[in-house]
This record gives sequence, C-alpha cells and structure tokens, in this order.
Amino acid sequence: MTLSSDRLAPMANAIRALSMDAVQAANSGHPGMPMGMADVATVLFAKFLKFDPAAPKWADRDRFVLSAGHGSMLIYSLLHLTGYASPTLDDIRNFRQMGSVCAGHPENFLIEGVECTTGPLGQGVAMAVGMAMAERHLNATFGDDLVDHNTWVIAGDGCLMEGINHEAIGLAGTLKLGRLKVLWDNNKITIDGDTSLSTTEDIAARYRASGWDVFDCDGHDFADIERALAEAAASDKPSLVSCRTLIGKGAPNKQGGHDVHGSPLGTAEIEAAREYLGWTSAPFEIPAEIAGDWHLIGKRGTAVRADWEARLAVNDQAAEFTRRMTGELPEMDGIRAALAEWVAGDSNVATRKASENWLNVLAPAIPEMVGGSADLTGSNNTKAKCQDPFTPTDYAGRYVYYGIREFGMAAAMNGMALHGGVIPYGGTFLIFSDYCRNAIRLSALQQTRAIYVLTHDSIGLGEDGPTHQPVEHVMSMRLIPNLYVFRPADAVETAECWTIALESRETPSVLALTRQNLPQLRTSGDMLSARGAYTLRSAEGDRKVILIATGSEVELAVKVQGELHAQGIGADVVSMPCMELFAAQDEAYQREVLPNDPSVLRVSIEAGITQGWERYTAFSRNGGLNIGLDRFGASAPAKVLFERFGFTAEAIVPKILEKLST
Amino acid sequence: MTLSSDRLAPMANAIRALSMDAVQAANSGHPGMPMGMADVATVLFAKFLKFDPAAPKWADRDRFVLSAGHGSMLIYSLLHLTGYASPTLDDIRNFRQMGSVCAGHPENFLIEGVECTTGPLGQGVAMAVGMAMAERHLNATFGDDLVDHNTWVIAGDGCLMEGINHEAIGLAGTLKLGRLKVLWDNNKITIDGDTSLSTTEDIAARYRASGWDVFDCDGHDFADIERALAEAAASDKPSLVSCRTLIGKGAPNKQGGHDVHGSPLGTAEIEAAREYLGWTSAPFEIPAEIAGDWHLIGKRGTAVRADWEARLAVNDQAAEFTRRMTGELPEMDGIRAALAEWVAGDSNVATRKASENWLNVLAPAIPEMVGGSADLTGSNNTKAKCQDPFTPTDYAGRYVYYGIREFGMAAAMNGMALHGGVIPYGGTFLIFSDYCRNAIRLSALQQTRAIYVLTHDSIGLGEDGPTHQPVEHVMSMRLIPNLYVFRPADAVETAECWTIALESRETPSVLALTRQNLPQLRTSGDMLSARGAYTLRSAEGDRKVILIATGSEVELAVKVQGELHAQGIGADVVSMPCMELFAAQDEAYQREVLPNDPSVLRVSIEAGITQGWERYTAFSRNGGLNIGLDRFGASAPAKVLFERFGFTAEAIVPKILEKLST
Repeated sequence: MTLSSDRLAPMANAIRALSMDAVQAANSGHPGMPMGMADVATVLFAKFLKFDPAAPKWADRDRFVLSAGHGSMLIYSLLHLTGYASPTLDDIRNFRQMGSVCAGHPENFLIEGVECTTGPLGQGVAMAVGMAMAERHLNATFGDDLVDHNTWVIAGDGCLMEGINHEAIGLAGTLKLGRLKVLWDNNKITIDGDTSLSTTEDIAARYRASGWDVFDCDGHDFADIERALAEAAASDKPSLVSCRTLIGKGAPNKQGGHDVHGSPLGTAEIEAAREYLGWTSAPFEIPAEIAGDWHLIGKRGTAVRADWEARLAVNDQAAEFTRRMTGELPEMDGIRAALAEWVAGDSNVATRKASENWLNVLAPAIPEMVGGSADLTGSNNTKAKCQDPFTPTDYAGRYVYYGIREFGMAAAMNGMALHGGVIPYGGTFLIFSDYCRNAIRLSALQQTRAIYVLTHDSIGLGEDGPTHQPVEHVMSMRLIPNLYVFRPADAVETAECWTIALESRETPSVLALTRQNLPQLRTSGDMLSARGAYTLRSAEGDRKVILIATGSEVELAVKVQGELHAQGIGADVVSMPCMELFAAQDEAYQREVLPNDPSVLRVSIEAGITQGWERYTAFSRNGGLNIGLDRFGASAPAKVLFERFGFTAEAIVPKILEKLST
Repeated sequence: MTLSSDRLAPMANAIRALSMDAVQAANSGHPGMPMGMADVATVLFAKFLKFDPAAPKWADRDRFVLSAGHGSMLIYSLLHLTGYASPTLDDIRNFRQMGSVCAGHPENFLIEGVECTTGPLGQGVAMAVGMAMAERHLNATFGDDLVDHNTWVIAGDGCLMEGINHEAIGLAGTLKLGRLKVLWDNNKITIDGDTSLSTTEDIAARYRASGWDVFDCDGHDFADIERALAEAAASDKPSLVSCRTLIGKGAPNKQGGHDVHGSPLGTAEIEAAREYLGWTSAPFEIPAEIAGDWHLIGKRGTAVRADWEARLAVNDQAAEFTRRMTGELPEMDGIRAALAEWVAGDSNVATRKASENWLNVLAPAIPEMVGGSADLTGSNNTKAKCQDPFTPTDYAGRYVYYGIREFGMAAAMNGMALHGGVIPYGGTFLIFSDYCRNAIRLSALQQTRAIYVLTHDSIGLGEDGPTHQPVEHVMSMRLIPNLYVFRPADAVETAECWTIALESRETPSVLALTRQNLPQLRTSGDMLSARGAYTLRSAEGDRKVILIATGSEVELAVKVQGELHAQGIGADVVSMPCMELFAAQDEAYQREVLPNDPSVLRVSIEAGITQGWERYTAFSRNGGLNIGLDRFGASAPAKVLFERFGFTAEAIVPKILEKLST
C-alpha cells in the first residue's frame, strides 16, 4: 500500500469533517483532538496498523488504544471509514445520543473495534501496557506464528501528566515491552490553556529515563509522520513518538487554542473550516474517491489474516490457543474434586493463606492465570509455586512483580483481560484499593475478568494503624456496579469465591482477605458462596435473631450464637460472602435465608462502616442492629483492637438482649 | 554547632538502638529504614533543620516530613532525643500498642512534632509540595521576617515509584519550589526484593526532567552527607538528594536485604547489632553523653525562634499573620449579610455556578483561601475574580493551576492546610475523586480543612457518558469517617454548605455540584443546611409520605410532592444536603424531620446508588422506597438520561402509590 500524501490529505480531512460535524450535531464533544491527530492517525491506519474490519476480534490484530478518549470521534471515524460494520454513519450522526454506539467516550462494550473504554485520563496508556504484556506472554507461549502484534496508542498531554503514566511507563520500560508504541498528541494545550500553565517537564527525557525510545515528528507532515512511526516500529524498546500538532487543525480561526478542545466549533467556524480544507461535501457525506481509499486501507489486512488463519489451522496448539482467547476455562472437574476435599478438611489459616493454598490448586490447572502483586507478594500471598516471574528474558513467566504501582497494576490487568488469552489477578492491601479505585471501576464498566486479591482487610491487620486499616472499603466497593466483592469467612469460602471469580467472565471480582488466622467453619455444602449468603448455622429452638456476618466476623457470629443459645434465644448465623450474588438470587431463596418476618431481630456484624447494612437489617424487630466500626481504627495488636471496638461476644450479646427487650 | 563525625556516629546509633528495640518489643514494625537513614537524619537534624522542641508549632519552623512513614521509629527517635515533650520514652517502649502516641505510622493528630500522617506511599512527598507552596505564599504575603523556612522530606523507593510522585514533582518543578528538599533513602530494596525486580528507572534523570536539582551522597559518610545537604540547601530549585544507604545498617547479618524491611530483627541479630555498633546500653537506655549531644541539637533553635518572636512582635502584620496561622476565620458578618440577600433572591443556576458566585463573596473576605483546579477551571468554576494565578513569579497569587494531577492536588491541599495560614480548596469532576480518594481519606484522618469542589455530580452531566458519570461516588464518600459530603440543592444551600465547610476546622468537606441549572428552592431560613437535613416543604393535610432528596433531585421531589398533593396525599419534602451533619443532630431534631412513625412512607430520591439510603428510609411503611440509579449511566443529553432512568414525577409517583396501596 503506497498512498501518497496527496491521497492521504483528503482521507485525513474526512476524519476532520466527520468529527466537527458530529460534535456540532450533538452540540457536545471534543473536536480539537480528532482534527489535530487526523493526519497521524491516517498514516497509522494506512501504513502500520495490522487489522481487518471484517474480523474485529481477530486474535493477532494490532491493538489500537485511543487513550485520549474524549477525542472519540477520531476512532469512530477511523472504524467507520475503514469498513467496520459498527459504527454506521447513522451511529455517527447520533453521536452522544441515547442508543447510539457512538457514546461520548469510546466504550468497549458498545463497539467491537474499540479495544477498551477510555476517558479517565492516563488509563488508556496503562491498559495498553497490559495488552503488550499479554501479547508477549502469549507469544512466548504459542510462538510467532500465532501471536506477533503491536499495541499502538494515541495519548494526549493529560494522559502523560496523570500519575498513572509514571507507573505505566516504568513498568513497560522495566519489562522492555518493545511492541508498545505511544503516539503523543503534543499540541501544548490543555483545558485550562497552554500546557506551560501547569507543566514545564521535559517529557522526552522522562521517557528515556524509564527505558523508552523517543521519536519526534511534525504531526501534519505525512512523510515525516511515516518516518517517525517506522522508526518507532523498528525499535526494540517501548517507544514514544512526539507528534507536534495543532489542536483543532483545520478550523482556521480556532486551531491551536484551548477553546477548540471541548466545544463544538459553531456553524460559522465549520463553514470556515470547510473552505480552509477544501471540503465541499455535505455533513456526513464522504466523497466516493476518499471513501474508496479508506476502504482499500481496510482491506489491507484481509490477506494477512488469511495467512494467519492458515497457520492457525495447522498449529498443534490451535485448540488451546483458541480456548484461551475465547475465555473458556479448562475442564474444572479436578478443581471441584479438590474443593470437596477442602470442605472435608479442618484448616486454621488466614484467608490470604487459604487463597495461596487454593492458588496452588488453580494455577497449575488454569495456565492462563497470570498473577502478581504491587510489591506485597509475601503479604498478599499471591504467588503460586508453579509460577515463574514474568521478565524481559522470560515472558512465559506467569507472575508479575508490578512494583509499588497499584493503579498501574490494576490498569495493566484490565489491558491483559481485554487483550484476551490471559486471566489476570493482582494483589495489594485492601486499603490501597483507594489508589487504583478508578481502574477497578473500569474493570466493572468494561466487564473484564480481573481479580483483585486485597488482603489485610480490616482492623485485624493490627499495628500498622488507621492509614492501613480499611474501614469503609468493603462497603464502598459494594457500591460499584457489576463488581463482586467477596469477603470469605474461612478457607472453604475462600476457595469457593476464587472459583466463582474465575467463572465470572463479565464481572470483575475483589477478594477481601484477612491477615489473621481464622478457623474453618464450613464442613459441608457445595459452592454455597455462589448464593452470596446462606445459613451457616441454624437456630436451636425458636428463631428470634438472625446474625449476618462476613469474613473474620463470621467466627464471632458463631460465638454470639453460642451465647444466645445458652440463654435460650434461637439465632441463625448467615454468612454473606458476597452481597451482589445474594441480591441476584430469586426472592424465594432470599426469603429462605432472611424471612420476611419483622418480629425477628436481624443483626449485622462486620468490622467496617455500618451504613449500607441497613438494606438487610432494618426491616426487622426495632429496626435491626448493626455492629461495625464507624470511625477510623488505631494502632495496636489485632486482638486488642477487636476488644476495644466491641467485636467480642461479651460486647455484642448485651446489645442484642437490649434490642430484644424493647 | 560543629559536631564532628565521632560525635555524630553514636547519636545515629541511638536512633538505631531505639528503633530495633522498639520494633522488637512490639514484635511488629519496620527497623530497616530508621537504621538505614539514621546517619542522614542525624546530619539533617544536627546541622540543617530549623526547629525548636519547646515550640513544636512555631510558625516559621522548617517542616520535616517522613514520607516513608513505615519507618516511624526514625521520627519518634528524633523527636524524643531532641527533647520534644512527646513522645516520651514510655511512648516508645509502647510502640504500636493501644494508647501509645507512637503508632505504627506517624499520626499528626497524636504528636505535635509530626507534621503529617504518612504511610500511604508517595503522599508525604506530595504533601510536602503543598507545605512548600504555603510557605512561599505566606512569604510573598508577609515577608522574610515572618516566613522563611524549608520543607525537608525523607522518602523511600516506594514514595518515588508511586504515580503520585510524578504529579508532585511535576508541580514542584513547575512552581520552582526551591525550599523543598527530598532526601531519598536509596537502598535498592523494596518489600519484594531488589528494586531491579520491578524498576530500571534512572531516577535522577527523571527528577532533572521535571526541573529539579539532584545531588548524591554516601548515606553513611557524615561529611559527604553534610556536603550534599548543603548543596541542596543552597539550590534555588527543588532538590533531590540520593542518599546511598544500606537498609538496616547496623544489623550485621541482615543489613542490605529485604528481610530487614518490615520485621523485627530477632534477639540474636539485635545482640549482634549491639556488638557491631559498640552499643552497650540496655534497651531504651541512652548514654548520658549521647543524650546530652542530642539535647544540644534540640536547643539550636531556641535563639532563632526568640529572634523570630522579636520580629513578630514589631511586625505590622503580626495580628493578621497570627490569625491565619491559628486558623481563625476573619469576621464573617459581611458574609452572613450576603447570605441573607441570597436567600431573598431568585437564582436559576447550576450549583457549580452558584459556588463560583459565592466564591466571589468569600474569597475577597477570606484572604487565606487559596483555590485551584486540576485543569478544569472553567468547568469547576473554582476561580474567584479576585484571585491571581499562583506562579513562580507571583507566589502571592491565590489560584493554582494544578494541571491534570488530581491526586497531587489533593495531597498538596492537605500539605497547605497542615502547614497552616492557608485554607485550600480545589476542583475536579466528582468522578475523579476516585483518582485522589486516598488523599481525601487522609484529609479526614488528619483533620485538615481541605475543601473539594467536585462538579458534574451525576448523570446530569449528560453526554460524556458512564466514564464521567459518578453513580456510586456521593454515597461512597459518605462512608469515609470525618468527612462532610455536601450535595446542595440550589444556590442558597450551596452558599450555606460552603460557609459550613469553611467553619469546620477539623473536618474536610466535599461539595458535590451540578453541571446543570437548578431553580432556587429556598427562600427563607438561616443556615438550615447546618442541620444536615430539614423539611423544605411541609405536607398539605395528613402526611402519608416523606420525600428525602439531595442536590438536583430536590427539585424533582418538589414536583412529586405537587402531584401527590393533587391526589390528596400529604407529603413532606426533606432536603438532606449533608447526611453526616444530620446524623450529628440530637434525636429530638432528627425525629422532628423524620418522625418515628412506621406508617409513613419514606422515599429517598438521589441520582446514584441506593444502598446506604436504607438507613433513613427502611424504618417505614413497607420498608420504604429508594429511587436511585443502581447501574452505570449512559451517554445522552441530561434530560434524556433523567427520563430514561426514571427521574421524573411521572415515573416516581406510581411507585409511591403502589407502596402506599399494599
């Protein structure tokens, strides 16, 4: 494909026209970036990117990430023009309207050609790091014949200024991810004005300091762009290409200024732009010759994909490769059998340790699991024995030393899951979910199977004190839609919750695990955690009380039950490892566990903030009772803290008696 | 003060001895950092730091931040040895035990000499940036006579690897904060092992790329340390000193390895260390000569402070300076009068715009307010007319262009508030509270008066779609202890909430504000928002329903009330701008607003996750009703979204009627 600059220029202008017209029609959106990066993106798609619009999910395609997601009209234009089935021109006409797949920011769950949801700045680059990791891992596992592609990113100043950029590029540099290429829209403009208002950084020097190659081009000179992209493509280091551009290029009176970043151009300026660009077509009309050139570009990948399909057809590992890429788990009978053995056991370990033990069952059986930790391997217990480190000299390794980079880790996990062929999990302390919270949210929004192993899940971590003691975190993550928050009570629930997490292909999971040992409470039952909550111990005699607890407080609930029974007061103990799964059960089951009987006193016990528990306790005798911790913790040994904050049967039983007596 | 190396070495060993003995006694803690950085810290305190243990809150002291907060025994040792009243030797003996001020991580609310709470990695450096900003601002305002001090930081590899470090040093470099000096404990060890496991970055090059000076020293050569610190002190740029150290220096068999990072040395190794260091005293005993040398160091500041006190006594601005530093607001009568005018008005603006309008009342009257935004000035409406930019050429400016650095901004705000003399506020979109969540948590834990202006607070932001639409954020921030989460319903409540936030000296605040216009609902009453919730519109006739709403949904609740009244069903409308303040009211008031009458149907209306609302609605006819959004949003105009997701009187009234009929 050798398209000359005079063919490329009108193609780029087609992006500009679609972008300015769609933003104008919506009266909302960001024309500046798509117009500014139209030339660079045209060269990328025309000459470098490996893709086939007829097969958006082709496993060996290059991944393209629009990290500066507000410039969504750039990717919508590119996908439409190159011949993807989605978005259609009608979708583009309805940009940012209800029902159009052309949402304000690109959403992976709306359009197949959108590799990931972007908009929260910085995370696109960081997800691309994960995609590049997955690519190298699968390449090392399945060979060049099946896996050999690049990850290309378009990023703006915001993506580079966010803290997560430091984590992402540090990880990429350390791992020597030479297949990762970031095209920086270097336009010197942010929303507030010139970048010099807030930054004076030498970005190239910083990238070089992190082990990257840095290239540079005039982002409006097609030959220069092609040269720089070729240099980046040839580099064996992760590469940044500084594309010097004019934001809003093509809008003659507004280009280069910050007003063009996030507002429609207005009809007068659009008229001026049409004249400036020599664009005579009506809005949303693409001249046939230009459309034809774009379609030719879209056909570039047909033969390449056919070759790949032919190689796949004769590859010994084709079935395994395809299984992993489609996200199907391997046969799980061995794991079910191991679980049955666990239930029959009698463990007394922290749930973080139970998690490690169970990982040693899972990881050998599920080779696509790639673990890691943000520098807390020995505390999160995330490394299975069968896992070697993932390093530049061994990309087949299945354990990532992410470093002290929680946000970068979580975003990379999303990237790996989105790439496919890998099930990522990663650990940090539960408290530091705060550091990566928006990436966890993006796991939920993007429906990725990312599994967060978050240990030290309450004041039970003890001496490290309130900066390290999560009190609001379990409940606050329950508020994120499409996220399973598991807080298992013992080794059996831990194994069950892990297994459910792996089997949940479109829902990410958090496993909140203890530092401290817990006795095994479950000695029967099969995957009871899958119901979200269940009656662990039934009342003796008349049930007056239902104790609902999670994690380390289930043991306490059992003790409270014992004391109540000694006083002739019947009490159920309900273990609720996952509120979201319980809420998804049918009403009959929910009523079986929590009967619709306001004469029974419902009591929640969880070493965290109580707000949110009223959902399950308030419809109850005297409005129910919530035992929790509605303040920050303190520094002391765990046992002292639990006593100090009232997590003992001695402190709880009188409160229950008082509620029952009124 | 010219202490030679042979005097300094035993002083540093006193830190080592206290640290290893305290960690051993607690059987918990981190000996590696205090032992490794003992020599550097000794030089810093002995020769550079301006401080007076007799006056820990002396306004012109140097600020010292132990960013690597896990090494807390370092600062406890230093404070005790130099003669601060707290911590005592008994506190150190009881390190990490309930009731000791020597908590696992340093807590500013437990010890006066601890400038800020550290432990969550990276935030110490970022708070120090804020302290250095406050210093320069007050210097520009009050002159060298009153304000002329440095901010010194000790940071570890973790602090430098976290993403927030990029934001913090970028901000410091851009603002040319030459009074900021970071001493990096360059020991090449993290928890998981050698730093090379996870990073290959050229840290010095990265700092230089951000406009910093970088110096280097052998962290165990007193003369070399002194040289490097002197060079850093003389630099007019923010400076990093790479202190090459051996982690756990002094423990002969463990030093230099990652096992010494976070575990007690054990009695055998402590014995070996005593021999290695020539330390013959019993645990927690400091030889008199060494104690004397340390006390001499502690007296270094006495005369310096006396000179400063003398200058203050004759300074024209002394009263104003002292007022600001003590955190007292100026006389607020003018502001109260302006508020009365507002109540009498008839505005129809977005609450973000009302916030801007009210800022134009507040900022001229309260000169210590320093605002800013993370590159969303025009969207957050955070800039008051009277504010000039805070820049390297005008530190008297009161508006900070923080750049696209939410986490760095929030931590800097904490640093400014902790420094004193400044009331910081800063803006971003509410959704990006995720990016700075742990800094908001640290505002709450540290009891700083930081005010977060978080706009675009619901699906009401419209077309930007689910990545930008907070649904869980308002409720999830309500779960953080000691944080006021305000969601005002109109211009009057916005002004009231702003005023309460300013008057809350030990509680940070979030103002969740709309993008879209809202009518003025309040036309009477004085600071009703201070009660957290109040009856905005009373029922006509028998009250059957109480509608509880916040922010933009209060207008909707009023419409619903109208429809119910039309059908002869009496309904109160309760506006609840701040759940935390309502929860703090006495029971009589709470019962006045929400009577203890389960025959009344309570209905919450808020365009967000409903879990958590049951606290106020479940004790109610049929368990109450929660109108909310328990899913991610979508991209469309706001009006379309509100209709689609059921936020209309037409959708809500039938649900209420159904609840009433059963």
